[in-house]
Amino acid sequence: MSFPLRGHALYPAKGGAEMDIAQELLNGSRLALTRAITAIENEYDEATDIMKKIYPHTGNAFVLGITGPPGAGKSTLTDKLAREYRKQGKTVGIVAIDPTSPFSGGAILGDRIRMNGLTLDEGVFIRSMGTRGSLGGLSHKTADAVKAMDAFGKDIIFVETVGVGQSEVDIVKAADTTMVVLIPGMGDDIQAIKAGILEIGDVFTINKADHEGADRLVTELNMMLDLDGVMKDWRPPIQKVVANQGIGIQEVIAIIDKHHSYIKGNGQLAERRIKRTKDEMLDILNSRIGSYITEKIVDTGIIDDFVRDIKARKTDPYTVAAGIMHDILK
Amino acid sequence: MSFPLRGHALYPAKGGAEMDIAQELLNGSRLALTRAITAIENEYDEATDIMKKIYPHTGNAFVLGITGPPGAGKSTLTDKLAREYRKQGKTVGIVAIDPTSPFSGGAILGDRIRMNGLTLDEGVFIRSMGTRGSLGGLSHKTADAVKAMDAFGKDIIFVETVGVGQSEVDIVKAADTTMVVLIPGMGDDIQAIKAGILEIGDVFTINKADHEGADRLVTELNMMLDLDGVMKDWRPPIQKVVANQGIGIQEVIAIIDKHHSYIKGNGQLAERRIKRTKDEMLDILNSRIGSYITEKIVDTGIIDDFVRDIKARKTDPYTVAAGIMHDILK
Repeated sequence: MSFPLRGHALYPAKGGAEMDIAQELLNGSRLALTRAITAIENEYDEATDIMKKIYPHTGNAFVLGITGPPGAGKSTLTDKLAREYRKQGKTVGIVAIDPTSPFSGGAILGDRIRMNGLTLDEGVFIRSMGTRGSLGGLSHKTADAVKAMDAFGKDIIFVETVGVGQSEVDIVKAADTTMVVLIPGMGDDIQAIKAGILEIGDVFTINKADHEGADRLVTELNMMLDLDGVMKDWRPPIQKVVANQGIGIQEVIAIIDKHHSYIKGNGQLAERRIKRTKDEMLDILNSRIGSYITEKIVDTGIIDDFVRDIKARKTDPYTVAAGIMHDILK
Repeated sequence: MSFPLRGHALYPAKGGAEMDIAQELLNGSRLALTRAITAIENEYDEATDIMKKIYPHTGNAFVLGITGPPGAGKSTLTDKLAREYRKQGKTVGIVAIDPTSPFSGGAILGDRIRMNGLTLDEGVFIRSMGTRGSLGGLSHKTADAVKAMDAFGKDIIFVETVGVGQSEVDIVKAADTTMVVLIPGMGDDIQAIKAGILEIGDVFTINKADHEGADRLVTELNMMLDLDGVMKDWRPPIQKVVANQGIGIQEVIAIIDKHHSYIKGNGQLAERRIKRTKDEMLDILNSRIGSYITEKIVDTGIIDDFVRDIKARKTDPYTVAAGIMHDILK
């Protein structure tokens, strides 16, 4: 595959000096970082080369996952936390995922506009990612975007996503520490949402804590965590905040730091990262094999013959799959 | 793998007559249908055999997907629609998916309790499905559960899921017609949610239409659909309902029937089903290859050596994946 954007302003035209994206990224070029993530997001051929080259320089950043239902104020909270970390002299990367629009492609950028002040800060790099039409693969792309920011030298990287379904949970797995943001008055299905995210939250934040029902939500959540946490040695703290007024931000930072020290001290951070490396490797392998199958079975049209026979009920998908397995595996 | 539940009340103990689940299902045994879906859900070995045997008897049911954000009243609406179809003499299957709890396993059954009246009706078969700890694969399991109900002889099968993220969209692909349920007053992020589900909805229902903001939601949705639908020949209708009072149910049924006739008449139903068969086959193939990899690389512990080298930055996941590909593919 040739490079679709060759000739575009961001990419030197033929005859111009080719940019070594990985090297420039490691040298601290923001343009190279932008291009690296674009390559990752669009699955350009060079993405793998870039990842291979930057990989030895990853593993230094602290990755904070932020998830919660739509409308919980995650962007505002991320904004405030990022500013606080900047005050401490830390550099910040933000990967904002919007998996709600799987078909139309591109992230909803409205929320990001609120972060305008941050984008003027050279110490902050913000990137929104959508699924851009390609179904699946978002968790893998997110993990690679985090690695690009990590190799670039960011001290702390936020991964922000709307957390209700499975894909969002997968995305949050790229994080060392996961913060779940909830708000009072979320209606009937809060039980269902809470049940799902209870197990992924290391830290819970109740945003809009000045609204009615905040204390009741804290009580409910405490009950659920007590029930859930009998066998766990880290009891996720719950912190009330009013993100848009900056209330409770310092306290959240302290809790995040505490969790970070905790998992660093007892070996859990190393364990989580080994688990993550394993999952990532299997993910890459599965996606490569998927491409191989597409190339051999789908692009060649072989699959259409199979589908015709299945449709006529001459065979079934299970028998066909077994046959293909036999044909392609050693 | 042996049958984990052998000896359980549902499964005859050693020496007892083995039930031919597929045959009994085709003969109309509800117990066999229950056991078939349990086998599908838990990935028991015999699931594939059952699916192979029942496959020739599938393709007759009309499959209606119902999705929408948490709290939209999807269960109540499903309940009312099911009762209406029963009055028409049609048999009904309901697969209710709860993907919000990926780790704890099992579906939240609270909503289903409201359907108690329905469960007493022999013409209705209801099954809740969660992810039961195994990540992913839910869309494939859902499709197989639908096929089991289809082969059993159900005329219309509902697939009900909480639709916000990617996994829910994948699940809804098992449907011939997809209905999206929205409610007024959903807060700031309704734009994001609507953008995602706009493209999967064949029919839109505004539930709780007696609440404030219903007309504004209809207007907004109309604008979005007009914008989106320029090139489409089916303009998704919007129907206001108050599901718990039974208001608007007849109208929704009429719209669903209209869409069904429409896609049947112009060949779209056949096209959708061919596309679905193709996707399903690839899904089965990918999942089988995934199991093969687990068996060869993970269960043998080979992966741990790789991960150690990656962690030491002696290699990277991309290089390792390429090496494994080379080793296992013909």
